[in-house]
Amino acid sequence: MKLSQATTMLDVALAEAQKRGVSVCISILDAAAWPVAFIRMDGAPLGVIDVAGKKARTAILFQMDSEVFAKIGCPGGDAYTLENTNGGLTSFGGGIVLRTADSTVLGSIGVSGASTEDDIAIAQAAAKTLTA
Amino acid sequence: MKLSQATTMLDVALAEAQKRGVSVCISILDAAAWPVAFIRMDGAPLGVIDVAGKKARTAILFQMDSEVFAKIGCPGGDAYTLENTNGGLTSFGGGIVLRTADSTVLGSIGVSGASTEDDIAIAQAAAKTLTA
Amino acid sequence: MKLSQATTMLDVALAEAQKRGVSVCISILDAAAWPVAFIRMDGAPLGVIDVAGKKARTAILFQMDSEVFAKIGCPGGDAYTLENTNGGLTSFGGGIVLRTADSTVLGSIGVSGASTEDDIAIAQAAAKTLTA
Amino acid sequence: MKLSQATTMLDVALAEAQKRGVSVCISILDAAAWPVAFIRMDGAPLGVIDVAGKKARTAILFQMDSEVFAKIGCPGGDAYTLENTNGGLTSFGGGIVLRTADSTVLGSIGVSGASTEDDIAIAQAAAKTLTA
Repeated sequence: MKLSQATTMLDVALAEAQKRGVSVCISILDAAAWPVAFIRMDGAPLGVIDVAGKKARTAILFQMDSEVFAKIGCPGGDAYTLENTNGGLTSFGGGIVLRTADSTVLGSIGVSGASTEDDIAIAQAAAKTLTA
Repeated sequence: MKLSQATTMLDVALAEAQKRGVSVCISILDAAAWPVAFIRMDGAPLGVIDVAGKKARTAILFQMDSEVFAKIGCPGGDAYTLENTNGGLTSFGGGIVLRTADSTVLGSIGVSGASTEDDIAIAQAAAKTLTA
Repeated sequence: MKLSQATTMLDVALAEAQKRGVSVCISILDAAAWPVAFIRMDGAPLGVIDVAGKKARTAILFQMDSEVFAKIGCPGGDAYTLENTNGGLTSFGGGIVLRTADSTVLGSIGVSGASTEDDIAIAQAAAKTLTA
Repeated sequence: MKLSQATTMLDVALAEAQKRGVSVCISILDAAAWPVAFIRMDGAPLGVIDVAGKKARTAILFQMDSEVFAKIGCPGGDAYTLENTNGGLTSFGGGIVLRTADSTVLGSIGVSGASTEDDIAIAQAAAKTLTA
């Protein structure tokens, strides 16, 4: 992941959030789960700073979008307690694995602060910049 | 949040707890989740010191009373694992967002040590001093 | 330590700080190092919240005022690295052991936010209420 | 602190770092020490992600640039062990308090990854955008 790829994604995610009229935090991690870039939009609640990071962390650590992870890492799921590993992961949507056009994993993005549907849509808009 | 507002709330909360014959901890945070004031009543179990703080933290970080948060941050809730973010949050009542008469968020209060109903009532009594 | 003793100390410490024209945090712990009461005065920097607590913690854990502890828990001191135990202690003044008139240890008080001299004087003013 | 102020600072800091031929991490916090924006330049060592954040945290928590803090929070300094409070602070330069033209504290910026002199110069270049 290059910083220029991350900042392009931030720009697109920010525009998408503004279009939807929501305030979110956006966290981008590299393929080794280390932070590359982060922004908090004006008005986003303080609690979602950590949530955005954990969504991205969940996605890259298991190379699985957090809404997919949610189905196994939960009470009754095939891997209940997996959500409590790695310092705490996130069993709901908004964390997405970032892949290039040839499917190379570049990192992940986590969006939090709006409805889960909006969070996912914003993350997907950003992710698409890598394959366009 | 001014200290004078917080100490007025502590006085009212303490009187309400004494009236109900219960021993609680009361934690007051500012709008950025930093502590402003705290008291532990004689006889309150040691474990509730942290609980009072986490209730207040839950309320201010998501600008949502902890009993409302409890409905989404729990197994089967829309945001299961949200309760494990931000160092651990509280999915039961007793943490209340503090607002002025014009709805400005000033901070939060967390009360713990009695029944959840008593904890909530004590927190609400304190919160009302800001709008009276 | 009773809450009423702690709140009396908070009142005296607050008055002493106001007389000196400084903004401090004041933390009071019981004899087992658990929090009894805390206040942050308007204008105190956020960083001193933790410092006030650590000063009080240092004093009660070793039953030694933090300015005395400072002489042994430092590079070159008789117990260098002691300051790094117990989650981090404080090797400068402002944490004072609280004793009754018959020398029973009741707990400790930590004051932070002003000069070390002012912090100590404020803590001492509060401590005197237990022996007067 | 508005996000637009933070992203303007990131742009200026990034340009200054590129001009100097160095790779750094840049962390911007609000006045209550919560993250607003962060970037890691290509080639910056992973260890400096945390350092940039701690520099910024040091500056805002004590409203003191980290190179000034370094003179008191160190062995032999007036407040040895202060550097170990608040989860660990930074006793060297590169963390700067951000103020508007009328001296209102807006937050802080931390830069890490180059020489301390370069880190400070990059942070200062960014900080100037608030007073220009």
